[in-house]
Amino acid sequence: MDSITVIAMVSIITAGITTGVGCMFPAISEGKAVARALESLAQQPDASDTITRTLFVGLAMIESTAIYCFVVSMILIFANPFWNYIIAQ
Amino acid sequence: MDSITVIAMVSIITAGITTGVGCMFPAISEGKAVARALESLAQQPDASDTITRTLFVGLAMIESTAIYCFVVSMILIFANPFWNYIIAQ
Amino acid sequence: MDSITVIAMVSIITAGITTGVGCMFPAISEGKAVARALESLAQQPDASDTITRTLFVGLAMIESTAIYCFVVSMILIFANPFWNYIIAQ
Amino acid sequence: MDSITVIAMVSIITAGITTGVGCMFPAISEGKAVARALESLAQQPDASDTITRTLFVGLAMIESTAIYCFVVSMILIFANPFWNYIIAQ
Amino acid sequence: MDSITVIAMVSIITAGITTGVGCMFPAISEGKAVARALESLAQQPDASDTITRTLFVGLAMIESTAIYCFVVSMILIFANPFWNYIIAQ
Amino acid sequence: MDSITVIAMVSIITAGITTGVGCMFPAISEGKAVARALESLAQQPDASDTITRTLFVGLAMIESTAIYCFVVSMILIFANPFWNYIIAQ
Amino acid sequence: MDSITVIAMVSIITAGITTGVGCMFPAISEGKAVARALESLAQQPDASDTITRTLFVGLAMIESTAIYCFVVSMILIFANPFWNYIIAQ
Amino acid sequence: MDSITVIAMVSIITAGITTGVGCMFPAISEGKAVARALESLAQQPDASDTITRTLFVGLAMIESTAIYCFVVSMILIFANPFWNYIIAQ
Amino acid sequence: MDSITVIAMVSIITAGITTGVGCMFPAISEGKAVARALESLAQQPDASDTITRTLFVGLAMIESTAIYCFVVSMILIFANPFWNYIIAQ
Amino acid sequence: MDSITVIAMVSIITAGITTGVGCMFPAISEGKAVARALESLAQQPDASDTITRTLFVGLAMIESTAIYCFVVSMILIFANPFWNYIIAQ
Amino acid sequence: MDSITVIAMVSIITAGITTGVGCMFPAISEGKAVARALESLAQQPDASDTITRTLFVGLAMIESTAIYCFVVSMILIFANPFWNYIIAQ
Amino acid sequence: MDSITVIAMVSIITAGITTGVGCMFPAISEGKAVARALESLAQQPDASDTITRTLFVGLAMIESTAIYCFVVSMILIFANPFWNYIIAQ
Amino acid sequence: MDSITVIAMVSIITAGITTGVGCMFPAISEGKAVARALESLAQQPDASDTITRTLFVGLAMIESTAIYCFVVSMILIFANPFWNYIIAQ
Amino acid sequence: MDSITVIAMVSIITAGITTGVGCMFPAISEGKAVARALESLAQQPDASDTITRTLFVGLAMIESTAIYCFVVSMILIFANPFWNYIIAQ
Repeated sequence: MDSITVIAMVSIITAGITTGVGCMFPAISEGKAVARALESLAQQPDASDTITRTLFVGLAMIESTAIYCFVVSMILIFANPFWNYIIAQ
Repeated sequence: MDSITVIAMVSIITAGITTGVGCMFPAISEGKAVARALESLAQQPDASDTITRTLFVGLAMIESTAIYCFVVSMILIFANPFWNYIIAQ
Repeated sequence: MDSITVIAMVSIITAGITTGVGCMFPAISEGKAVARALESLAQQPDASDTITRTLFVGLAMIESTAIYCFVVSMILIFANPFWNYIIAQ
Repeated sequence: MDSITVIAMVSIITAGITTGVGCMFPAISEGKAVARALESLAQQPDASDTITRTLFVGLAMIESTAIYCFVVSMILIFANPFWNYIIAQ
Repeated sequence: MDSITVIAMVSIITAGITTGVGCMFPAISEGKAVARALESLAQQPDASDTITRTLFVGLAMIESTAIYCFVVSMILIFANPFWNYIIAQ
Repeated sequence: MDSITVIAMVSIITAGITTGVGCMFPAISEGKAVARALESLAQQPDASDTITRTLFVGLAMIESTAIYCFVVSMILIFANPFWNYIIAQ
Repeated sequence: MDSITVIAMVSIITAGITTGVGCMFPAISEGKAVARALESLAQQPDASDTITRTLFVGLAMIESTAIYCFVVSMILIFANPFWNYIIAQ
Repeated sequence: MDSITVIAMVSIITAGITTGVGCMFPAISEGKAVARALESLAQQPDASDTITRTLFVGLAMIESTAIYCFVVSMILIFANPFWNYIIAQ
Repeated sequence: MDSITVIAMVSIITAGITTGVGCMFPAISEGKAVARALESLAQQPDASDTITRTLFVGLAMIESTAIYCFVVSMILIFANPFWNYIIAQ
Repeated sequence: MDSITVIAMVSIITAGITTGVGCMFPAISEGKAVARALESLAQQPDASDTITRTLFVGLAMIESTAIYCFVVSMILIFANPFWNYIIAQ
Repeated sequence: MDSITVIAMVSIITAGITTGVGCMFPAISEGKAVARALESLAQQPDASDTITRTLFVGLAMIESTAIYCFVVSMILIFANPFWNYIIAQ
Repeated sequence: MDSITVIAMVSIITAGITTGVGCMFPAISEGKAVARALESLAQQPDASDTITRTLFVGLAMIESTAIYCFVVSMILIFANPFWNYIIAQ
Repeated sequence: MDSITVIAMVSIITAGITTGVGCMFPAISEGKAVARALESLAQQPDASDTITRTLFVGLAMIESTAIYCFVVSMILIFANPFWNYIIAQ
Repeated sequence: MDSITVIAMVSIITAGITTGVGCMFPAISEGKAVARALESLAQQPDASDTITRTLFVGLAMIESTAIYCFVVSMILIFANPFWNYIIAQ
């Protein structure tokens, strides 16, 4: 296999795995936060404003780790400096 | 194996694994959220509006991580820049 | 092995694994939701309408992740662009 | 190994694994649902109609994921497009 | 190794593993259901009819996934289309 | 290695593993059922007839999955069609 | 390696592993049953007859799965049809 | 490597692993039974006779699975029919 | 493969894996903290200021470990000293 | 590698692993029994004689499985029949 | 591959993995500490000073293990004595 | 690699792993026993003599399994019969 | 690869892994201790001196195991006797 | 690779792994003991002397297993008999 094939191959594999693996735990984590939020709402309906606001701030921070992975994945597919260097030669 | 075969091969494998793996945990997570929502409904039937609304917002955010994986998978099958480059040569 | 054999081989394997793996956790997750729904019904029989409706919406969203996997699997067997390209040559 | 042997080989292996793996978790999941249904029946015998009905709908949806795997497995054994293409040559 | 040996080999291995693996979780699952049924009987002896009936329906559905695996295993040993094709040549 | 050796080898390995693996979980499962039965007996000595009867029916169904594995194992050792075909040549 | 060595080798390995692996879970399972029996005896000393009898029947059935493995192991060492066929040639 | 070396090698490895692996879970299991027995003694000192007797019967049955493994291990070291056959040639 | 290809290859793989793996546990951890914060808010609505402030400080420190991984990943893609040395030759 | 080296090598490895692995679970198990004994002593100081005696009998039986492994290990190092046969030639 | 490539390769991989792996558990651990701190604040709002101070000291010590890993990672990338020795030749 | 190198190599590896692995679980187990002892002391300060004595006897027996591993490790490094035989030639 | 490359390579890998792996569990462990300390402070604010002092002694001992790993890692990078011997030749 | 390289290589790897792996569980175990000690102190502040003393004795015994591993590691780096023998030739 020549260089181009190798770089393309590992870029594809890594992009897929990074997103596939990196989205697993944020999903778990958001599910946990949502589940606990629902439980808290049932327990203390009067505090629904504070609970909802804290939940959304928390979900945003958790989602951010999933987005790091998605960003790395997109960089590897569409803005890969190694690929650009190789095909530029 | 020539380059075309290799790129096609890893694209197929990665597309399958990314979706297969990446959908596992959102499913778990949604199940957890739904289960807890049902429990909360049974415990506090009067707050069913707030609970249902929070549940749906949460499910949407969890589903988003599954969709990232599905998107990467579709990109690898139908809009793969490496494949396009290789067959263009 | 020539290209056709390789592409056919990985398509078969990936299609099987994607469905096999991707259906595991939705099944778990639906089981959890159903189990909790039954528990909630036993605890609060009067709210059976809300519980049943929320359960079915939730099951539909969980089932959707299993269907993503099944769709990828069917695409790889019956509408595989790489296979079409290879046998077209 | 020639192409026919390879395709036959991976079809057999994938068919077996897809069913073997894909039936594991639906079984777990149905066991959980049934177990919780029995518990609910013991706790609230009067709601046995609603519980039984919800249980059967839930079991049907869980069974559906096992059936996806069985379907993929049967397709790979008896209606495999790659095998048909190879032996047609 | 010639084709016949290879096909025979993977058929034996796959048949064994499919049954071996596929029977694990139904067994666990039935054990769980039976255990919970016994617990429910001790807790609510008067509902023994409903409990026993629901248990048997549930066991039948769980057993069905074990039987899918056993069926695939028997097909691979005694009605294997790939083996028939190979030895027919 | 010639064909006879290969077929004999995989038959031995598969037979051993199928029984070894396939008997693990039924054992766990029966232990769980027996343990819960003992607990139920201590809790409700008057229902010992129903409990014992349900236990034995449940054990029989769990044992059936172990027996599927043992049957496949015995078929592979003493009634193996692939082995018969190979040594018939 | 000639055929005799190979068959002897896999017979030894499989015999060891089958017993080693297959005895693990029955041991766990019997331990669980015995532990729960002791707990039940402490809780309900008057029902010691029923508890002891049910325990012994249960232990016998669990032990049976360990014995399946031991039997397969002994067959592979002392009554192995493949070994007999090979050394008969 | 000649046949004698191979057979000796796998006999040593299998003997070690069978005992090493096969003694793990009986140890766990006996620990569980003993721990629960101590708990029961503290809870119901008057039933110490029944508890002790049931404990010892149970330990004997659990120990039996460890002894199966030790027996297979000793057979492989000191009464190995394959080794005897090989060195007899 | 020449040096440039090798260095590019391992840089891509490592960058992907570092982010993918390193973001998993911070996500879990933030989910846990958020969930517990929601629970605390429901339990003690009056202390919402202290709880929210402590939560945000904690999330910042947890996020910092995810950022270490992202930083290493970015260094490997855009400021890799080994890559610079190799292509400078 | 000649026969002597091979036999020495696998004897060393197996001896180490058998003891290393085989001592893990007895240690866990004894820790569990001791921990529960301490708990029982705190709960029922008057029964300290029975508890201590039962504890020591139990520890002895658990220790026996660790000793089986140590014995096999020592046999493999100092009384290995395969090693004796090989160096006798 | 020449020496320079090899050293560069393993430095990149090790740097990535050390940070990726080594940051996982501190993240978990900080999440646990923060979660428990929030719980304690909700339970005993008056002790918020002591709790916050102890929390920050604890987080600093946990963070220190993550920093050890990050330091090793940075040493391997920017102050690697083996790399310096190799390129100095 | 000649015999001396091989024997030295496996002796080093096995010695390290045996101690490394074999000390893990005794450590866990002692931690469990100590933790429970502290709990018992807090619950029943008057029985501190019996508790401390039983704890130390138990720790000694648990430590013994760690010492078996350390002994095997030291034998392999400093009194290895296979090494002595090889270098004596 | 010549000796220098090999030694450098394994030194880098081992240094990274030892720190990466060896810092995981102390981090977990410190998190556990800190979390429990916070819980104890909330429960018994008057004993904050004893609790804080015991916590810091405990953290120091736990940190010591992380430092053993860091020390081994630093020895392998900056004071490695094998590396010194090799480059001295 | 010549003998010196091989022995140096495995010594480095084994030294690193033995410390890395062997320090994991003592750390966990000490964390557990410290956590439980803090809990006991909060529950029974009057027994702080006995608790602290028992804690320190326990920590010393747990630390001893970590030290066994560290000792083996140091022996392999600085007093390795195999290395001495090899370089003496």
